[in-house]
Amino acid sequence: MAETTETTAPEVTLDEIVALCKRRGFIFPSSEIYGGIGSTYDYGHYGVLLRNNVKNEWWRAMIGERDDIVALDSAILQHPRVWEASGHLEGFTDPMVDCRTCGLRFRADKLEDAQCGRKPSKHPGEFSECDLTEAREFNLMFETHVGPVKDTGSITYLRPETAQGIFVNFKNVLQFARKKPPFGIAQIGKSFRNEITTGNFVFRTREFEQMEMEYFVPPDEAPKWHEYWMDERMRWYTELGIRPDKVTLRAHGAEELSHYSTATSDIEYLFPMGWSELEGIANRGDFDLTQHARMSDEKLEYFDQDKGEAYIPYVIEPAAGVDRAMLAFMVDAYDTEEVEGRKRTLLRLHPRLAPVKAAVLPLVSKDGMPERAREIYADVRAHVPAEYDEGGSIGKRYRRQDEIGTPWGITVDGETMEDGTVTLRDRDSLEQERVPAEGPGERLAAKLAKPWRTPKLG
Amino acid sequence: MAETTETTAPEVTLDEIVALCKRRGFIFPSSEIYGGIGSTYDYGHYGVLLRNNVKNEWWRAMIGERDDIVALDSAILQHPRVWEASGHLEGFTDPMVDCRTCGLRFRADKLEDAQCGRKPSKHPGEFSECDLTEAREFNLMFETHVGPVKDTGSITYLRPETAQGIFVNFKNVLQFARKKPPFGIAQIGKSFRNEITTGNFVFRTREFEQMEMEYFVPPDEAPKWHEYWMDERMRWYTELGIRPDKVTLRAHGAEELSHYSTATSDIEYLFPMGWSELEGIANRGDFDLTQHARMSDEKLEYFDQDKGEAYIPYVIEPAAGVDRAMLAFMVDAYDTEEVEGRKRTLLRLHPRLAPVKAAVLPLVSKDGMPERAREIYADVRAHVPAEYDEGGSIGKRYRRQDEIGTPWGITVDGETMEDGTVTLRDRDSLEQERVPAEGPGERLAAKLAKPWRTPKLG
Repeated sequence: MAETTETTAPEVTLDEIVALCKRRGFIFPSSEIYGGIGSTYDYGHYGVLLRNNVKNEWWRAMIGERDDIVALDSAILQHPRVWEASGHLEGFTDPMVDCRTCGLRFRADKLEDAQCGRKPSKHPGEFSECDLTEAREFNLMFETHVGPVKDTGSITYLRPETAQGIFVNFKNVLQFARKKPPFGIAQIGKSFRNEITTGNFVFRTREFEQMEMEYFVPPDEAPKWHEYWMDERMRWYTELGIRPDKVTLRAHGAEELSHYSTATSDIEYLFPMGWSELEGIANRGDFDLTQHARMSDEKLEYFDQDKGEAYIPYVIEPAAGVDRAMLAFMVDAYDTEEVEGRKRTLLRLHPRLAPVKAAVLPLVSKDGMPERAREIYADVRAHVPAEYDEGGSIGKRYRRQDEIGTPWGITVDGETMEDGTVTLRDRDSLEQERVPAEGPGERLAAKLAKPWRTPKLG
Repeated sequence: MAETTETTAPEVTLDEIVALCKRRGFIFPSSEIYGGIGSTYDYGHYGVLLRNNVKNEWWRAMIGERDDIVALDSAILQHPRVWEASGHLEGFTDPMVDCRTCGLRFRADKLEDAQCGRKPSKHPGEFSECDLTEAREFNLMFETHVGPVKDTGSITYLRPETAQGIFVNFKNVLQFARKKPPFGIAQIGKSFRNEITTGNFVFRTREFEQMEMEYFVPPDEAPKWHEYWMDERMRWYTELGIRPDKVTLRAHGAEELSHYSTATSDIEYLFPMGWSELEGIANRGDFDLTQHARMSDEKLEYFDQDKGEAYIPYVIEPAAGVDRAMLAFMVDAYDTEEVEGRKRTLLRLHPRLAPVKAAVLPLVSKDGMPERAREIYADVRAHVPAEYDEGGSIGKRYRRQDEIGTPWGITVDGETMEDGTVTLRDRDSLEQERVPAEGPGERLAAKLAKPWRTPKLG
């Protein structure tokens, strides 16, 4: 067993995360060979696997384990009236000013960092020699045109949130899914916001993926379900390994609330740049269904047969971001320590989130070890996502797996050839135990299996 | 066992598929309450589950079972120079003419169906009283602007294919993934084409999802790998249940080839509207890497250490569509037959594709059957996606499950309460056998498991 001499465990910086993501191929700047395109990222191999695991765990918690939520996948291109009804066309804006000297455009509420492009002042935010226009509202939705004619009639928008695709399908889902409140509609998909201020790596990007669930409830039960979903979502993060002291619930003050919300709480995580929103859990009331009913002339209500009356359900919305959740899981899992005089960096990811579950490694590339390791690898990968690696020193190969968060290493060594056992190395404790070389795949799959959980309702 | 009196098995029409999709909540027109938005669709519960299964099977064949392919998820918004290099900016166009009388725009090569909006002729395609402009090329990429300023410098496009996101990341992947040709990069994601002519339900839509894999090979091995991927992809469809006589490979003639391709074969499926492309398998040569290397001044080549020389790999590309594949699987699985004097409609979907694997049904809602059925349901859903249904007659519930393609029905009846067995009903044969009520979940999971397959290479 390796000896851990010192745990340095510094709080990680965003730069360290960015460096690891690049070094191990989790995340690259998009269109990098052309100099990139502002705040847009491409996910490499391990990044995709990690993202998929995050999405799968959310999906399992929303759809797999529950009978009261159905799935939806609505289009990114929707009818422009959707955004009129939702309030995005009018209200989803930032105030902008133009500099008459240099032509650049700045956020009116962030002028303290702005500089004229032609006559920069020593002090950002000073525009003494320049002339700024009055602030105008700039809509954050990306605009495009459908069909061959570019006129006002063909304008449409890339959706700025997945939620509205759920509301406009409320009637369809009621008809076919035979559900009654409380019931939910869950969706994972990309959204787009033409943000003026992006940054903090994948925390705020113009193209991002959401995991949103709209839970329709009788109006008088809304506060109870709001509480319920705050608990459920907090539990989801901590069960997947987020340290409880790094995550918190913060209720919005009255002045912070969105136009559609009667109450919102954010799940915040202690990112390297400070406490920041990981997920919003809002009580949207009947705002959205009422708006769409008015705009479309459709009845978007539920008829309660027991009470003999129709009502518009209230909506509780846990809205999470895939990219943000992935970043939080990586930040939380990042650690460095000194082992036998050498520093190692590792991601202590929950095994269900880890991109690769097991690495199969021959100690050296001779004496029949690679051949035996390949046999064992064939067994392991039939059960769990695995890698085989025979290049370089064993220490270097372990370090590589530590950095991508692989929880288990299986090493074939001299003893394997004699007694039919392999070393099973634990990423976190560095403990190494001898286990039979036969059937490790099935044993690892059993370690990964999540005990079935039936969510308590009400 | 039920008796099948007659199999009518008509070829299905697209209208019948559309009707089933609406009736059972697979697919809805997008923004339907606002009158829809041309040729865009939202996927309902079973549609999402079926789509996810299609994607998972592709992912498993590309990533899960192989060591020579890595994953990527590149952004939809990319640098505009990507589309300059790829040829899309110049060449991805349809010729259009404007009618000077009514202002409408028509495809110049499809005028035979066109009509002036103000002075329609009796014969479509006749524009005797109208005046058409010269044909101009209309680009099929959706255009938008990034950032607050709308000028030529901020123009970007929604990607019309996922492939280019792979090519521009070639160098990144080479660096971190430690692969050498032959190796591949696989990606699933949405693409957008502002098609003038859409239609045939989800066959051709403006927003669609692609499953593309770019396989980089030494140039002299390209023809061999082209053959290899044609075989692999044909096998994928037929192993997932597509009838071999409904699917065929058709090589493009010289006049059909895209500008980037040295050889392309389409996998075509016999859709209700005739033989149509399901997937294209192209030998793209070194076109894309050469173009991006030229435009970006990056070296996009592989240095072969054994031969001591660098070369630009050739690319073999199997490019499939999620929506199209899903449509083919549904069309192929659709069947109607008369059973005991009543017509039933069913989807004979491969169990791994079926949205729901098992339905647990109490025969009647009394005598303790619902309670026992719920216990069994709890066991089943812990192992496979399942539904519990106790409403309405047992026949009606079976028909519902047949239409969504559920392969197995587990019915709790009077005998269950006496001898601890349940009925296991087979969707396709309608055979019913008595099996123990204990542990059906594990047995169904075993039926679903796919034998591990290690792809043969070279």
